[in-house]
Amino acid sequence: MSTQPLIRRSLDLTELLDGGTFTSVPGTRVGVAQAEVKRVGLVRDDIAVLVATGLAAGVVTRSTALAAPCRWTRARLPGPVTALVVNSGNANAATGTQGEADAQHMAETVAQELGCAATSVLVCSTGVIGVPMPMARVKAGIVRAVASLGSVDGHRAARAIMTTDLVPKEAACAVDGVTVGGIAKGSGMIHPDMATMLAFLVTDARIAPEHATALQALVTTVADRTFHAVTVDGDMSTNDTFVVQSPGVGPTAAPGTPMWVALERALHAVARHLARAMARDGEGARHLIEVIVEGTADDATARMAARTVARSPLVKTAIAGHDANWGRVLGALGAAGVAALERCDLDFAGVPVLRDGAPLPFDEARARAALSEPTVTIAARLPGPGYGEAFGCDLTADYVRINADYRT
Amino acid sequence: MSTQPLIRRSLDLTELLDGGTFTSVPGTRVGVAQAEVKRVGLVRDDIAVLVATGLAAGVVTRSTALAAPCRWTRARLPGPVTALVVNSGNANAATGTQGEADAQHMAETVAQELGCAATSVLVCSTGVIGVPMPMARVKAGIVRAVASLGSVDGHRAARAIMTTDLVPKEAACAVDGVTVGGIAKGSGMIHPDMATMLAFLVTDARIAPEHATALQALVTTVADRTFHAVTVDGDMSTNDTFVVQSPGVGPTAAPGTPMWVALERALHAVARHLARAMARDGEGARHLIEVIVEGTADDATARMAARTVARSPLVKTAIAGHDANWGRVLGALGAAGVAALERCDLDFAGVPVLRDGAPLPFDEARARAALSEPTVTIAARLPGPGYGEAFGCDLTADYVRINADYRT
Repeated sequence: MSTQPLIRRSLDLTELLDGGTFTSVPGTRVGVAQAEVKRVGLVRDDIAVLVATGLAAGVVTRSTALAAPCRWTRARLPGPVTALVVNSGNANAATGTQGEADAQHMAETVAQELGCAATSVLVCSTGVIGVPMPMARVKAGIVRAVASLGSVDGHRAARAIMTTDLVPKEAACAVDGVTVGGIAKGSGMIHPDMATMLAFLVTDARIAPEHATALQALVTTVADRTFHAVTVDGDMSTNDTFVVQSPGVGPTAAPGTPMWVALERALHAVARHLARAMARDGEGARHLIEVIVEGTADDATARMAARTVARSPLVKTAIAGHDANWGRVLGALGAAGVAALERCDLDFAGVPVLRDGAPLPFDEARARAALSEPTVTIAARLPGPGYGEAFGCDLTADYVRINADYRT
Repeated sequence: MSTQPLIRRSLDLTELLDGGTFTSVPGTRVGVAQAEVKRVGLVRDDIAVLVATGLAAGVVTRSTALAAPCRWTRARLPGPVTALVVNSGNANAATGTQGEADAQHMAETVAQELGCAATSVLVCSTGVIGVPMPMARVKAGIVRAVASLGSVDGHRAARAIMTTDLVPKEAACAVDGVTVGGIAKGSGMIHPDMATMLAFLVTDARIAPEHATALQALVTTVADRTFHAVTVDGDMSTNDTFVVQSPGVGPTAAPGTPMWVALERALHAVARHLARAMARDGEGARHLIEVIVEGTADDATARMAARTVARSPLVKTAIAGHDANWGRVLGALGAAGVAALERCDLDFAGVPVLRDGAPLPFDEARARAALSEPTVTIAARLPGPGYGEAFGCDLTADYVRINADYRT
């Protein structure tokens, strides 16, 4: 019985570009504006317009309480897209038929300014639920944001879409000539999707319209392995949206070609970076929790089991307290229905604590030190072929403070 | 469109007996002992023996990380039972083959003292996971607990099984000549089952051995409507156990008779009271959150939707902050996949906030006052026939403090 730490499967982690963002990709322009969406007098960018004209694909929340902008955007993906408009400060969710009209008016305002069809404009919103959009201010903001197109970069847009985020989230990478860049917002939390996760990626890869379905499938696969790995319990907010745009000014990528593989790797690398950044920026969080499950029947089971561990409040509070209470991990794996736990190997923060289902003695001081690191990795190994990851964060008293009085 | 508060379906709430507990039922005896299970020097009762000889039924956790005592107990239910032994301070979970042997030894020790078969003794444990049972102290404690049989009452047993519980949980009631009493432990929390929920009920109803299967089905139904309504996400701990014993010294109850209906009502009333008491005693909680969903396709869907709301950290933190952020309730219902939300009526703490899917203006001060009450009720109504309840509690910074350093 080896008591060496579990070897972590080497992840195909593509190196990111320094300072990369949405506008690192040729063929893109962004604009921002201060529209006082949440309240009059607010001084911050809260509207962004992302222009990247070409084929787009994407996924929105599966919630049946779908926000109006998500309904608008979902109906247009995959398909040809000119631009995307995003606001923070108001989710335009649970706003009835007025909300549907407001989402459409946002698209129409962008279309009018850009001279394109409103149906080629996607709309995303994030913020408070159940409050009508202040449309006069929103429309004026959109006009100013379009006017600023090209004069600002992705960094400004990444800030404009933040809500409770402490840091902007952006990345870019290049793989075999394909460039992917993107921005995202989301404060990974107990139910991260409830905080609304938005991610806007773009690639210079040229994708023919007949490959729209293949691009949509690729985006779904990438979402399952990255953003949904932060989706700690399958819950989704009313507004979650992940879109990939392809202005198509670079190399041609078609399914089955090496360039398509490069596109997948680049999308995965940027999406995974943004997903981990969301978890790390969890409301009140001091640690990124990375859970790796190897050896379930298949990958989907491994991902589900990893998410169950990452969402467990008992695991999250133990890590907040730097307490190597690995029994809670085993409890979460059991609650997830993982089979053959009597043969489980487990490392907690890199410290071997269980081998072949039997507890190992370990040095509490060493474990406590390992739990003080910004990233805490929990790795479980079982006898099967499945592999999955999940990204979470610890649960602190600050999380409670942030959420106890968000609306007022 | 009525803006009256939603009429709450009148619940069949049977009146409880003042000061009722396990030993309110004739034919029962309990004993307790200080066994220093968690650590040497601990001064508190931590072992209880409950004697109620007759047919028993029950359910244990569905976790695949099943603790050894649950494996032992599950194999014997439904069936003839002499006694049940419980310890707090150690879960005897993730303890390998030694744990299986230890659970059996606990049963054998009781059997030897009582002069019955070890296979007629149930075993339950609650406490830390992954630590071997201190069997010398446990066995000595069991001997003392059996020696004390009859000299103490259910109130002492209710205290002996507590872990992080602040108050003991016990109740009894009488319906048409059938008496049911019981004790329970569990600090309803974000994932209440992870804190281990134990509930031991007993009835004087005389149930013939050939009705073992019917009793088991009845216990399962009662569990679904009560204890599982606190099971906020279907997660279960390694050790959850709910047992009903029937020493059978009272009226005969057979399926299909009025006495069986009385038994069901009495079991439901006691179990529901104990379930709500667990939620109310949630770790760090200041409010019981009662969620009522009416109008889904069926009862199971309504219960699932109610649980999704009750477990939502965003709903829980909003209530901790006395903030009528009802959008989070709608978000949770949407995440639960509830259909026809565009026609939803919603009351938050008794304040109408949504009618036929449209937000209502409401008095924030009145809502804040209503949210200061110890019990906060959230009621959602849709057009269908389903009905379900869930019981939860608010999420406070104290919850985090309690769980960040539980083990050490």
